[in-house]
Amino acid sequence: MPSNDEKARRYALLSAQLEMARQADKAVVLVLAGHAATHKSVLVNQLNHWLENRQTEVHALAPSEEDRLRPYWWRYWRRVPARGRVGIFVHGWYGDVLFARVEQRIQAGAFDDRLDEINRFEASLAHDKVAVVKIWLDIGEKQQAERLQRLQSDPASAWQISKHHWQRHAQYAAIERYSAQMRKATHTDHAPWHCVTSESPSQQLNDITSLLQGALSQPAPSPVFNAAKLMHKASLAAQGDQSLLTLQRLAVDDDPGEADSGKSRKIPKKVYRQALDALQAQLAGNHRRCLQRGIPVVLAFEGHDAAGKGGSIHRVTSALDARFYRVYSVAAPTDEEHLQPWLWRFWRRLPRDGRVAIFDRTWYGRVLVERVEGFAKQNAWQRGFSEICHFEAQLLAHGAVVGKFFLAISKDEQLKRFKARAETPHKQHKLTEEDWRNRERWDEYQQALDDVLTHTHTQGALWQLINTDDKRRARLTVLSQLNDLLEARLQRP
Amino acid sequence: MPSNDEKARRYALLSAQLEMARQADKAVVLVLAGHAATHKSVLVNQLNHWLENRQTEVHALAPSEEDRLRPYWWRYWRRVPARGRVGIFVHGWYGDVLFARVEQRIQAGAFDDRLDEINRFEASLAHDKVAVVKIWLDIGEKQQAERLQRLQSDPASAWQISKHHWQRHAQYAAIERYSAQMRKATHTDHAPWHCVTSESPSQQLNDITSLLQGALSQPAPSPVFNAAKLMHKASLAAQGDQSLLTLQRLAVDDDPGEADSGKSRKIPKKVYRQALDALQAQLAGNHRRCLQRGIPVVLAFEGHDAAGKGGSIHRVTSALDARFYRVYSVAAPTDEEHLQPWLWRFWRRLPRDGRVAIFDRTWYGRVLVERVEGFAKQNAWQRGFSEICHFEAQLLAHGAVVGKFFLAISKDEQLKRFKARAETPHKQHKLTEEDWRNRERWDEYQQALDDVLTHTHTQGALWQLINTDDKRRARLTVLSQLNDLLEARLQRP
Repeated sequence: MPSNDEKARRYALLSAQLEMARQADKAVVLVLAGHAATHKSVLVNQLNHWLENRQTEVHALAPSEEDRLRPYWWRYWRRVPARGRVGIFVHGWYGDVLFARVEQRIQAGAFDDRLDEINRFEASLAHDKVAVVKIWLDIGEKQQAERLQRLQSDPASAWQISKHHWQRHAQYAAIERYSAQMRKATHTDHAPWHCVTSESPSQQLNDITSLLQGALSQPAPSPVFNAAKLMHKASLAAQGDQSLLTLQRLAVDDDPGEADSGKSRKIPKKVYRQALDALQAQLAGNHRRCLQRGIPVVLAFEGHDAAGKGGSIHRVTSALDARFYRVYSVAAPTDEEHLQPWLWRFWRRLPRDGRVAIFDRTWYGRVLVERVEGFAKQNAWQRGFSEICHFEAQLLAHGAVVGKFFLAISKDEQLKRFKARAETPHKQHKLTEEDWRNRERWDEYQQALDDVLTHTHTQGALWQLINTDDKRRARLTVLSQLNDLLEARLQRP
Repeated sequence: MPSNDEKARRYALLSAQLEMARQADKAVVLVLAGHAATHKSVLVNQLNHWLENRQTEVHALAPSEEDRLRPYWWRYWRRVPARGRVGIFVHGWYGDVLFARVEQRIQAGAFDDRLDEINRFEASLAHDKVAVVKIWLDIGEKQQAERLQRLQSDPASAWQISKHHWQRHAQYAAIERYSAQMRKATHTDHAPWHCVTSESPSQQLNDITSLLQGALSQPAPSPVFNAAKLMHKASLAAQGDQSLLTLQRLAVDDDPGEADSGKSRKIPKKVYRQALDALQAQLAGNHRRCLQRGIPVVLAFEGHDAAGKGGSIHRVTSALDARFYRVYSVAAPTDEEHLQPWLWRFWRRLPRDGRVAIFDRTWYGRVLVERVEGFAKQNAWQRGFSEICHFEAQLLAHGAVVGKFFLAISKDEQLKRFKARAETPHKQHKLTEEDWRNRERWDEYQQALDDVLTHTHTQGALWQLINTDDKRRARLTVLSQLNDLLEARLQRP
């Protein structure tokens, strides 16, 4: 029979959860890690029993084929609970890395790198109103042996105990050592570790529900974001690259004289067709080889309105096999997306190995349109730079090609194209009020673009800045740069 | 160089697509099937090139592990394009069944059954504003050999031709024969087959784009729904089952005398606890065996407001391992769900093999709340019965357990519970304005419920109608009936 005290705690927990579900202004993630024989599954079941389980998701991850065919963090991003919901993760993102280290499958450097990724992941969650509570279930070595022995000798519980548990027992010292390192490296104000050492499941449950209830009822975490520190690393790659800065000047140059001389350089149609055919044939071959090798390709297209993103994408896709690519037009988030951390909607669209995902407008919207239009607060877009760099680094770590194209246009040329669109019946749908509004904010967008180039022009994910005042030349440039990217990747193992 | 005529056709197609995307009042599916060497991939690429590919999805299905671990049609339901979008399916849902028949992996009966499933699937799509255009690409046997030979001898195209193509050539006669049967059986007004026999890809493209453009610009199909015919089959199982009708009378009986005598039968708390423990232990064991055998379990809970769905579900989940079940609370569709055929949001939540999905409110909302409140038009909820029966039949065909529980309550008892909820602080959140509104429509809901029981009490997916005036008895009944269901399933291979 549950005691009155237990009943009271239970209702308090449930009320806190229901209130959070009602407000839907944050999500709560509970990570349950720890030694073997610490009642993990009993606890998960009991927690789930106490919580409103229509708003709760439990994940004990055995990665599926679809998980394995995508960058590592895809499996966790897709399972992040929406605001208003609770996600319980058995071992969470800690099991993999800890046991890999314990079993010496990775060395100290890789271990640290992964812990760094975890910190960044949890910071992204915390910034987007996901409270993360991490529990380490502790037990003494001797006590663990006794408990395993006891469970095994009771026919009612013997099925729970496998060779696996005894193996973890044999690794006790290493688990103790590396988990201490791990907890120290990933203990942050916004996602702290809590060590639960209690003897009985009911006492453990007591400790955990207090922590969980705190997370449910307190305001969502607001981690301190040190812009200067986090942006430093990302901007290193850009510093030495003078050619980019040159291109940048070229593209954004607003001098009519320059635009005129640009006009005189226009490529004749016949030359263009021949070059296009050759580059597309080359691209088709390159993608076929990526497909065979299982190399995923992620292409990001950003640019000024009317710079010809759609046309350039079209020239790329014409060369690809339609079964293996997908073009995503990034617009306002859907309501399902609204309830998730902002990067979630890009993670969910990542291609599986060998496939191509082309984004027409991208995650850079965070630091471009959302910044300029004030949809994202200053500290949200400021940390966007490092979140973006981290996101792209994870794609690269998975072996993906990351191609980023910024299609730039001069202010004069944009005006010409707007007018042409307004006058051509089958192009009118391309011109909206919003285009004119954006044009008024040209200088603000230019400032935002400068910052993007400064902070996200990183090794392996360099920006291709393309002057599109001459559309033909721009399209050929996109194709040829994309071919270079794919060929460079194909040369690596 | 594209001719002016080609340009005009291309813009007409694109305009039709953009207009459809703008209105987003229907989706278009193009199935491209046919003999080998009929330029299928050329055509798909060309179509995709002409269409706005941000609104287009191409699927050439090699089922993934996640596909295979779920009922067969999950792989197609999850890929149905949202309204406003175009989905191109190479071979679509026809490739599997056709080649299975050609290679004698299935016999005539199974072939017919699958074609029947296809018809029902396409009818569901058509009813929910998905236009389906099906193309059969034809070619003569001799011409096919010549074309394969020609492609193989040219180094530029030789890579396209595999043993597989020659195998299809060897099967030409069988493909011709069975595909004719298949097309005849699945040729409907709302999803007709079109045979394209043209020689050259450009002529083929011409034919296909005309058909596609028609589908894009014409109003969405509105298939004729013959309620009498489709409901007949579903109601057969119910007719012989007198026990159900008895239960039904019991549950919906509104006689206060009956309710009083019910009260006297209430189970004492101590007896209840013991029985509950025993039934939950039994359930835990049964589910463990389902998990080992990879048997998925889908549980549907419907019932009157305040009949105790939540409490009953809680008693079920308490016995399950939290890692392997998920409870879905069915509310109004999200905006992503709104753009899809109505069953899509249930298909997307089906459990993989061995897992349990519990729906708190279900697909029966279509024929209960949507009917009574007028959210669904009469012919939409009328065909709901057969769509539901078909949906459940597909779960059963995959080997799933389908448990359907209707928790009924007398009108008096409901009033008592509403009042109790209003007075108990931690239960107030359960009582809403809507509950009172629904109560006013008690008789209409009762009529809808009668129809549900008449039309969807089908073999293998029988309704468990449970009187919940005594909550304890009701919970024990749910558990014991669920155990019976699982044990019956476990006895079968």
